[in-house]
Amino acid sequence: MGAGHTRFGALEAGPRDLIRGAVDAAFASVDKGADRVEVGEAYLATLGFGGWQIGHSAAVLAEEAGMTGVPTTRVENACASGGFAIRAAVDAIVSGRTDLVLVAGLEKMTDVTSARRRYWLGVSGDTEWERAAGVTFAGVYGLIASRYLAEHRVDPAVLAEIAVKNHENGALNPYAHFQKRIRLEEAQGAPRVADPLGLLDCCPVSDGAAALLLCAPDAARRYTDAPVYVDGVGAGSDRLAIQERPDITRFGATRWAVDGALRSAKVERSEISFLEVHDCFTIAELLALEDLGFAEPGEAARLTHEGATRRTGRLPVNPDGGLKAKGHPMGATGVSQAHEAFLQLRSAAGARQIPGASRALTHNVGGAGATATVTIFSAG
Amino acid sequence: MGAGHTRFGALEAGPRDLIRGAVDAAFASVDKGADRVEVGEAYLATLGFGGWQIGHSAAVLAEEAGMTGVPTTRVENACASGGFAIRAAVDAIVSGRTDLVLVAGLEKMTDVTSARRRYWLGVSGDTEWERAAGVTFAGVYGLIASRYLAEHRVDPAVLAEIAVKNHENGALNPYAHFQKRIRLEEAQGAPRVADPLGLLDCCPVSDGAAALLLCAPDAARRYTDAPVYVDGVGAGSDRLAIQERPDITRFGATRWAVDGALRSAKVERSEISFLEVHDCFTIAELLALEDLGFAEPGEAARLTHEGATRRTGRLPVNPDGGLKAKGHPMGATGVSQAHEAFLQLRSAAGARQIPGASRALTHNVGGAGATATVTIFSAG
Repeated sequence: MGAGHTRFGALEAGPRDLIRGAVDAAFASVDKGADRVEVGEAYLATLGFGGWQIGHSAAVLAEEAGMTGVPTTRVENACASGGFAIRAAVDAIVSGRTDLVLVAGLEKMTDVTSARRRYWLGVSGDTEWERAAGVTFAGVYGLIASRYLAEHRVDPAVLAEIAVKNHENGALNPYAHFQKRIRLEEAQGAPRVADPLGLLDCCPVSDGAAALLLCAPDAARRYTDAPVYVDGVGAGSDRLAIQERPDITRFGATRWAVDGALRSAKVERSEISFLEVHDCFTIAELLALEDLGFAEPGEAARLTHEGATRRTGRLPVNPDGGLKAKGHPMGATGVSQAHEAFLQLRSAAGARQIPGASRALTHNVGGAGATATVTIFSAG
Repeated sequence: MGAGHTRFGALEAGPRDLIRGAVDAAFASVDKGADRVEVGEAYLATLGFGGWQIGHSAAVLAEEAGMTGVPTTRVENACASGGFAIRAAVDAIVSGRTDLVLVAGLEKMTDVTSARRRYWLGVSGDTEWERAAGVTFAGVYGLIASRYLAEHRVDPAVLAEIAVKNHENGALNPYAHFQKRIRLEEAQGAPRVADPLGLLDCCPVSDGAAALLLCAPDAARRYTDAPVYVDGVGAGSDRLAIQERPDITRFGATRWAVDGALRSAKVERSEISFLEVHDCFTIAELLALEDLGFAEPGEAARLTHEGATRRTGRLPVNPDGGLKAKGHPMGATGVSQAHEAFLQLRSAAGARQIPGASRALTHNVGGAGATATVTIFSAG
């Protein structure tokens, strides 16, 4: 019933400022107002990237949110921290312990040395095999992309098409790190990072925070006449190293997550208006469409090429610009996706509004698919 | 309905071995057996101390527990991670999502450089004021102890008495880091660390893991004829830096936590058979007794001096040796406390068994009291 967001980007603000900004915005978004003393529980999603020299960050959330005393828990599942924190918050409400819960997601990724940044990005994947072999995150997704393109005989241009689409959406999102369109040739001609992925296939390193206020369904009308409901949540896990998996172009964790979410929401895929998927690299958007069951293996490329996933298409994907253009402050991402669902389902997404959006599915991935969550939201 | 534990200490074993050891022991403890495929959800409590070069540790739990696919969440609230993970697990069951949940706590604290160790210990407290002023964790507790002793005109010998008592209990615990008694004069004469705290007032730096299997109450008899129930859980938070608090000898987070736990358990303090409290330093055991409401401010010292908190006293405290003697592998500690409750309430604690123990209260603190949990268990 409330959601707030800071700008994403390379920001001056420190971690405490970012938390405060997002939490204040979430309270300000509550139509009929909410008092901080009503909050019974809070969750912070963050990797504590670079350490920011403040451990025990759950206590920092309580401080900055002005709710010292309230139980606060840090949830950390690499880049899926936000989705898992939302899931824990839903549990706290459904279990009957409290009616109002705050969830904040945060990352401060700039202002660390590049060596530290490489360490922190690296340890979200597998260290014992991948990192020890010198493979970075982009390297892992580069291997996946190579395999995907070869296996399904797909034109690599589709990756650039995804980048162009997500930048097109990001250009309309005032919170986005990159608010500018790019041309197909730019994406295709960008410096190579990990073949076939170029610089414009990769999400940026961003600072930012997002926050949600979740309440019990029967309390929603106390706070707003336009509530957004969490219909269902799901999550899953997979082997950490991609070499341990039977097929590197399929993320089992996403499959577990979407099954759980659809089952608990009692919803069919055909009822979903749009998707927010975890496109840390362009290739990841293709995998997501397939693992989420919105395209057969190898078919996501065609869907993309036909324009179905554009904001005006029949299945819009990442209307906020996705991780690619909006940015990816790791712990904040899952919460930010829910923020976009909140705006879209209340017809408050401005220039990037999807007309008539009534149900959203958000998909948050940790590492290279070792954990994942799916959450389904609907307009009240 | 199940609990497992590795030995605590400076161990050869790595993080994956420790997780596997504790999880296997937890399954082995289930009287009528439990299959891993029945587990619907898992939580890992760990600070990821020193980084152990493996981030995204929730996925490692799924791997080592042999339950790839199952949603797994890492919970990190400094030294209270274990207590908060148990609370999240209880939520997952009470919300009705699953009937069987695995909770594991882990820390591998040795085999890192002392600089890294100091960094990781330091960031669990406040950095911006305390650590920047050169105050270590022992320093913070030293300040608290000085204040406590002066305010209540307490003989400092009581701190040594706590150390002696906890070593006495630890000597009977095959899982303990220190399985040996110490004499009062040894404790009093130990090298000073942070006046008035000496070396034997401080818990050690330990490796270790513990694991629990929690099930829905109505499913308990499927697994055992001697179930242990979670009657209630509570948690709280406080300002991160002790200078921001009105009184440094009282931990507000513990007070929130115990109120919540007693209320949800619908239990009186008089019904509690024994306590497991968070004695990272001897002074912390005194604060805990008072904040938990088992002694008036300043009275915990008398209770200790009279022997009431010994294993044979009227309110046994830390029958397993506490953090002091059993050791304190940070993320494992809260789970280890529940393991002791499990043993004692099933009359399976061997030489350290408290006769007739029917209800236990466990108390887990993060940092210098910025977060805390209390959990109440009873014999079925």
